[in-house]
Amino acid sequence: MTPQPIVVGVDLGGTLVRVGALDTRGRLLHYVEAPIEARRGPQEGLALIEDLIQTALDLAVSQAAKPAEDLELAGIGIGATGPIDRSQGAIQNPYTLPTWEDVDILTPLQSRFGVPATLENDADAAALGEYWQGAGQGIQHLAVVTVGTGIGTAFVYRGELYRGLGEVHPEGGHQVIDPQGPPCYCGARGCWESLASGTAIGRRAQDLLASRGEGSGSLLWKLSQEAQKDVDARMVAQAAQAGDPLARQVIEEAGQALGLGLVNLIAFFVPEVILLGGGVMKSYPLFQPVVEAVIARHNVVVPARQVELRLVRLGRQAGVIGAGYAMLQLLNTTFGDGV
Amino acid sequence: MTPQPIVVGVDLGGTLVRVGALDTRGRLLHYVEAPIEARRGPQEGLALIEDLIQTALDLAVSQAAKPAEDLELAGIGIGATGPIDRSQGAIQNPYTLPTWEDVDILTPLQSRFGVPATLENDADAAALGEYWQGAGQGIQHLAVVTVGTGIGTAFVYRGELYRGLGEVHPEGGHQVIDPQGPPCYCGARGCWESLASGTAIGRRAQDLLASRGEGSGSLLWKLSQEAQKDVDARMVAQAAQAGDPLARQVIEEAGQALGLGLVNLIAFFVPEVILLGGGVMKSYPLFQPVVEAVIARHNVVVPARQVELRLVRLGRQAGVIGAGYAMLQLLNTTFGDGV
Repeated sequence: MTPQPIVVGVDLGGTLVRVGALDTRGRLLHYVEAPIEARRGPQEGLALIEDLIQTALDLAVSQAAKPAEDLELAGIGIGATGPIDRSQGAIQNPYTLPTWEDVDILTPLQSRFGVPATLENDADAAALGEYWQGAGQGIQHLAVVTVGTGIGTAFVYRGELYRGLGEVHPEGGHQVIDPQGPPCYCGARGCWESLASGTAIGRRAQDLLASRGEGSGSLLWKLSQEAQKDVDARMVAQAAQAGDPLARQVIEEAGQALGLGLVNLIAFFVPEVILLGGGVMKSYPLFQPVVEAVIARHNVVVPARQVELRLVRLGRQAGVIGAGYAMLQLLNTTFGDGV
Repeated sequence: MTPQPIVVGVDLGGTLVRVGALDTRGRLLHYVEAPIEARRGPQEGLALIEDLIQTALDLAVSQAAKPAEDLELAGIGIGATGPIDRSQGAIQNPYTLPTWEDVDILTPLQSRFGVPATLENDADAAALGEYWQGAGQGIQHLAVVTVGTGIGTAFVYRGELYRGLGEVHPEGGHQVIDPQGPPCYCGARGCWESLASGTAIGRRAQDLLASRGEGSGSLLWKLSQEAQKDVDARMVAQAAQAGDPLARQVIEEAGQALGLGLVNLIAFFVPEVILLGGGVMKSYPLFQPVVEAVIARHNVVVPARQVELRLVRLGRQAGVIGAGYAMLQLLNTTFGDGV
């Protein structure tokens, strides 16, 4: 019996690792995820990733409708929070994966599982996933903006990922929006990520709370106390939803910055569709009025109103599916369409 | 005898019309230019363009090494200051061509000269020219930034112009750099063009002069008096060159903005080469230190230091050559490589 090839997609984020086993039509056979503490080092992180891959494979096999020997792993695609060195298969990211600098992620996985592996930026992987199976199917100018711990951008142009010089992944999240804004590790003041990412939202709320004191009566104090941790973007969204004025101010400011970053993306690319994803965009309805107002007020020299904003559809699984797709594209290029 | 096909390239700017007759290898047979007063209306402007085309053709024919009947006009390519509607062949630009809104520029030229004509954005035409015959030959990720009356951006990716939805030309000149900056017709405050274009430089110098008064002793007063017109970017460059502190301040500020805009362009595209052109960039050495410092300070997450900044090589003729190339590309696509 001919074994059915499957691929594994790995999505390595700053706080979570997600792993999925996929068939060649993009059907997710099994999916697992686990928190990662990047600062405990790449060795521990890689061991976790290997365990999760093994788990996903075992579960995919045991739950398969067909007999176990019917499934055969063909490759592993990894999408990792950037920067990465794609040609070396190395993670170069001490920023959102503390201590992960010059980490070869492909060799250990290739030797453990005996199959090829490929590395993409996580935003690129998610964009490929949405283009293949999600909200961006068939879109010839597709921008994807992922707002989570940081802000990632990716661009799928005529069905292919846009890459810069030396195949590098662009980082639109570090465009400068406000040169008087807060400093970022990228060297800028007021880059997009420093103003509109989940990290920025949490920090801005913390700063405002600290300056106003507990007496401001913000719901954020209560949420932070209950959770026994610092205010984060999720709490800000929850408090804003409940009408908390301070949280609403933070959302308004972040929405302005989010909108301005989209204005610039539109000025440079004029895409047909911009997909919005990432944890922060789960609360997109809170941001939507200000984002739309900012876009409507700008860009009269390009048809900005024709650019459609959509939410991603695959959610947390986009990166996994897209990383698997990247591996499949590579297998097809290398070995023909037989896979 | 087989006639040798030639094309005419037209570069319609906010203040000048340039026209060239080219052979199919990109050799400029004849070139003419004349000032245009756009606000006198499209009819007068179109008549001027027709006259210039006829002049360029006549001169190309009379000066040709071969007999006159040897040259045959095959088409006319136009690059016009945007926005344009490429599919309609119409200029939609009341901004830098006052009164030119919804002006069909192709039909009159096609009927007058009996050949096909095509319309491109001027920045796109200049980019094609530099890619074909200038400083961008063979560059697979080529960005071109034209700093003149406004700021135009164009991107030649793998040998083809990047176009957005509906084939529109992006307008990176209207990315927002500083939301506290001066208002622009595009709807933004502090867009790139409003901070670093020749117009912006002239206006900023005028404002600073007005606020400081003649007693500031700036050389700009003298230059403005001598020329009997308002201070413009050329005078600012001249005064800065001579060490005038106010002019140097204006150049420093514009250079900061120019650098930030390039930082953002690099973040989004990570091109191999950025070509700088337009009237203001004739004084690029004045801007260079601050531009390079701004880029060096930012973008640590992409290999910005590998991005090469070059000056355009074709200068004032880039648009004409590129517009001719656009026509040739179209003729080759439509009629095969026989032209």
